[in-house]
Amino acid sequence: MSQPYGRVFNLSAGPCTLPVPVLEEAKEQLLNYNGTGMSVMEMSHRSKPFEAIIHSAEEDLAKLLGIPGDYKILFLQGGATLQFSMAPMSYLCQGAQADYVVTGTWGKKAVEAARLEGPVNVVWDGKAGNYSDVPDLESLKYDARASYIHMTSNETIQGVEFHRDPSLKAPVICDMSSDILSRPVNVSKYALIYAGAQKNMGPAGATVVIIRKDMLDRVPREMHPMLDYRLQAENGSLYNTPPCWSIYICGLVYKHLLKCGGLAAAHSRNKAKAGVLYDAIDGSGGFYKGHAEKRARSIMNVTFTLPSDDLTSAFLKGAGAQSLDGLKGHRSVGGVRASIYNAFPEEGCHTLASYMAEFQRQNG
Amino acid sequence: MSQPYGRVFNLSAGPCTLPVPVLEEAKEQLLNYNGTGMSVMEMSHRSKPFEAIIHSAEEDLAKLLGIPGDYKILFLQGGATLQFSMAPMSYLCQGAQADYVVTGTWGKKAVEAARLEGPVNVVWDGKAGNYSDVPDLESLKYDARASYIHMTSNETIQGVEFHRDPSLKAPVICDMSSDILSRPVNVSKYALIYAGAQKNMGPAGATVVIIRKDMLDRVPREMHPMLDYRLQAENGSLYNTPPCWSIYICGLVYKHLLKCGGLAAAHSRNKAKAGVLYDAIDGSGGFYKGHAEKRARSIMNVTFTLPSDDLTSAFLKGAGAQSLDGLKGHRSVGGVRASIYNAFPEEGCHTLASYMAEFQRQNG
Repeated sequence: MSQPYGRVFNLSAGPCTLPVPVLEEAKEQLLNYNGTGMSVMEMSHRSKPFEAIIHSAEEDLAKLLGIPGDYKILFLQGGATLQFSMAPMSYLCQGAQADYVVTGTWGKKAVEAARLEGPVNVVWDGKAGNYSDVPDLESLKYDARASYIHMTSNETIQGVEFHRDPSLKAPVICDMSSDILSRPVNVSKYALIYAGAQKNMGPAGATVVIIRKDMLDRVPREMHPMLDYRLQAENGSLYNTPPCWSIYICGLVYKHLLKCGGLAAAHSRNKAKAGVLYDAIDGSGGFYKGHAEKRARSIMNVTFTLPSDDLTSAFLKGAGAQSLDGLKGHRSVGGVRASIYNAFPEEGCHTLASYMAEFQRQNG
Repeated sequence: MSQPYGRVFNLSAGPCTLPVPVLEEAKEQLLNYNGTGMSVMEMSHRSKPFEAIIHSAEEDLAKLLGIPGDYKILFLQGGATLQFSMAPMSYLCQGAQADYVVTGTWGKKAVEAARLEGPVNVVWDGKAGNYSDVPDLESLKYDARASYIHMTSNETIQGVEFHRDPSLKAPVICDMSSDILSRPVNVSKYALIYAGAQKNMGPAGATVVIIRKDMLDRVPREMHPMLDYRLQAENGSLYNTPPCWSIYICGLVYKHLLKCGGLAAAHSRNKAKAGVLYDAIDGSGGFYKGHAEKRARSIMNVTFTLPSDDLTSAFLKGAGAQSLDGLKGHRSVGGVRASIYNAFPEEGCHTLASYMAEFQRQNG
């Protein structure tokens, strides 16, 4: 079935599909934003129109996530990868140590960066099960001296996800890059949340940090400016020129989500979409095999394998003809990965499920 | 005189005007880039179309600047401000020291960041003249032990610029944020050039680094990934998700510049544009006073003052009615700053010069 503007079903793990109405608005205003006589790409970050853009993005994000008043929202650069470093640079110094829960590839990368700064205890590692599960966070043994606990709420590559917020004593730092805004979150359970924009928020280039104010006070003095949460907070993310266009698009996405019922409604849509694909897997009599344990199944990244590499290749090859793009799984898991972030249409899940059934009929 | 699409003459110091044909092409392809069925904002950075975008941006930039084969082009994040830190983190360690030439605000910031890493000798500082001049670089006394010399080719706030490339023994690291691509450059005179995209290249969010390969070998082991020139070079700027949209627009700007005759032609246009404004200043009998010494006058940022603060306010107020936007000078210099980067139309310089003459006639 053909999509507006000749668009395909984009199942990439990120960057990924953005809402069509957001793209339409960005297109409409590309050479002249809101009567300012210039594009947002050309606008001084110190100008009133851009200040309105960033403030409104902050307000709408706070509204969507119900962010309490003792948190600050920052728009930074460098993606989650820079956050893997900034968090330990800030909190794993001067004899501190930290606990890390590793449920997949990105958690492992976070540990590697943290170890450049100080001692890290990996309190849980899903390696033995090839990262197909997540633990019960409250029942793990943490070190009483840990200055923070790091977790990854959704592992994009493995497709495993925590489905509720943790209740832990130490400050929790959470990489929410690939499931932020996919469901309501109790922000007060976290001391610091970070997320690259390029899944559920906007174009790559902006990184959102939601940080409790007491964590700002704990940042050491003499940090390099671009690595200093406190300085960025004091300057309202405008210490230097921020990634203005990415922030602008994030803001449009936030407004769009609010208009579509907020995160509870997004969560319903996401569960329904993921349900279509997991049902297709579970109903295939073992032809399609889900990578994740059922309790840990991600509603953002649906990972599954086929009986052989040849069938996988044939499956991926045939998907293109159905306008299903970006399905190839990461080499560490193999098989197929369907990334169905907020803006991915439910119709695309039905198209994929039908294709899965048809492919099995012909090759099963 | 009215501009296409109701656009104004945008004289902001950055972000700033981009070429209208580039914006038109970006608009045209916003929901479906080149038949891929998706926006560049939505495209996997590991996809063939995006690889083609970034490779072609690299090739075109190399062509424009005549970058020799022993250099690598990187597209990073964090702006020049992160480069103020990355350069000393990489080359001002293990007992090294560095020489800095300070011709304005940005050079001062670079020194501050470098001092967090190691000893810095300021070999020239324009402070006594309120940063209105640049030195003869070859006649300064450098420290034989300096592992590099840092300079700022154009100081955006003060409007002072070096008009030729230095010939120095030690590796030269140059912040070219505000004049890159404004004139032909002999890249081989520099060991490392960095520039935020948001003046002459594209939207904020991308930072271009042009680095000689031997400088990559000198980067210490155990760097944090996002601060590691070597790792970024090994991964062709794709270690993590890069600022794809900013890189795409930079690529369109490079193609546009090549089509318009390359950097020699851009230089002619820029000199002519700046000439219009400096002639207006010099012909005003002292009513308008240029901040920079004539030999150091920037062809990108034209800074000048009026006889009083009241006249300055009135001048800035009246400019809006001529669609002249973003003229307010930085508080450290005061007065007026006309930033006339590559994409700023010559017509806008004539409009401003006429307005200056008319304002003087009424208030002089």
